[in-house]
Amino acid sequence: MVENKERIALYTVIKLKIIELIKTGKYKADDQLPTEIEFCEKYNVSRTTVRLALQQLELEGFVKKIQGKGTFVSSEKIQTPITQKIQSFSEQMKGRNAESKVIEFELIPADEAIAHILNIEENDPVIKLVRIRFAEKEPLQYHTSYIPWKIAPGLSKEECTGSGSLFELLNTKYNVDISEGIESIELTLTDEAVSNYLNVPLNSPAFLSESKTFDKKNNIIEYAQIITRGDRTKFMIKQTY
Amino acid sequence: MVENKERIALYTVIKLKIIELIKTGKYKADDQLPTEIEFCEKYNVSRTTVRLALQQLELEGFVKKIQGKGTFVSSEKIQTPITQKIQSFSEQMKGRNAESKVIEFELIPADEAIAHILNIEENDPVIKLVRIRFAEKEPLQYHTSYIPWKIAPGLSKEECTGSGSLFELLNTKYNVDISEGIESIELTLTDEAVSNYLNVPLNSPAFLSESKTFDKKNNIIEYAQIITRGDRTKFMIKQTY
Repeated sequence: MVENKERIALYTVIKLKIIELIKTGKYKADDQLPTEIEFCEKYNVSRTTVRLALQQLELEGFVKKIQGKGTFVSSEKIQTPITQKIQSFSEQMKGRNAESKVIEFELIPADEAIAHILNIEENDPVIKLVRIRFAEKEPLQYHTSYIPWKIAPGLSKEECTGSGSLFELLNTKYNVDISEGIESIELTLTDEAVSNYLNVPLNSPAFLSESKTFDKKNNIIEYAQIITRGDRTKFMIKQTY
Repeated sequence: MVENKERIALYTVIKLKIIELIKTGKYKADDQLPTEIEFCEKYNVSRTTVRLALQQLELEGFVKKIQGKGTFVSSEKIQTPITQKIQSFSEQMKGRNAESKVIEFELIPADEAIAHILNIEENDPVIKLVRIRFAEKEPLQYHTSYIPWKIAPGLSKEECTGSGSLFELLNTKYNVDISEGIESIELTLTDEAVSNYLNVPLNSPAFLSESKTFDKKNNIIEYAQIITRGDRTKFMIKQTY
């Protein structure tokens, strides 16, 4: 028991030492870190200790492992503004080469839960749209949208492909009068499918946002679940007193 | 390898089944869940599988384990508004019985990192204030503030104790003209000290906020690092189009 406790304390110490090496600029973004064995010798600790420290640093976004190559310092997290104005992903990622890829586009009958959330009847047709969002060529978000068919009858996969904004499309082509939204941010752990798409280890901590957006008549035009990589994201909020 | 993959898939299935039991109201807040063995029999899976599912559900805030008593459904997460107006913890926790406990109050010389952040000289005196913040008697935040001594010379531990707002105190007693702030939100994993104070398992995913607050002359009046429990917190943002 004591041994176990000591090992835990030790890997935290090693983790903080490596964070210091990065924060003071001894190792910079994309630099290769020493190998596990080199760290063992440098700090005189076991390989398990070094491995635990590096695993945590990877989950927290300080380093990334590249199979067969080694461990490298991650580039800075992507600063994503939180504002009280609805912004498209492209606006949030301004200058960061935002891209989207549609991986699912289906017309489905609303099940009980989705019908309740969208305030429509069960089995009413709903468009389910799943997109992977990229910034700087890196997958950043797994974004699932549910849009009542009647809001955008005829919406096609092609229209949702590319870097344009879905809301702008709904607004200009389907005359949807977008008014306001409410969004929540929680924590989650990534499952297999999401981990694969976002290129992170299974069970990585990630942000889970849920948003509901309304038109001026208070119809829900979209319900979205967005999983955003925790290791690459830093939300930013400007505030006044 | 295949066996391992199958077990992973299986615990995700069990996890989703239990989430469904909670979301559909079959089990409500504070209800006791079946035991691990009962779940094994119900779903015909191994105890390891059930345990993994319950561990994840605990980290994500769906259930809580009480030593010697069993596993219970958690009450709803605490909805914490994000606004572009600086709000005190009491304002954010309105109606939720906000309390603070000072666990550290020290006058320290600024080290290189803190001096850089606060834009003061190295070794200039800085007040380090660590508070645990509670809502509904439950620990929710581990809040570390660094305040340059010259901003509030004579600030005492007693003044920082209680449920009052630090900014209001700086404003009324020390004539600090608070203007604006910038806050970031990232993910982190809790270390031993924070886990103990917040009463969560070691390495629980949590929100890490860093904030810098400025006065009207653009002096930094506070730099804060805030670790907020991921299993109990849901940030909320209202947005307009």
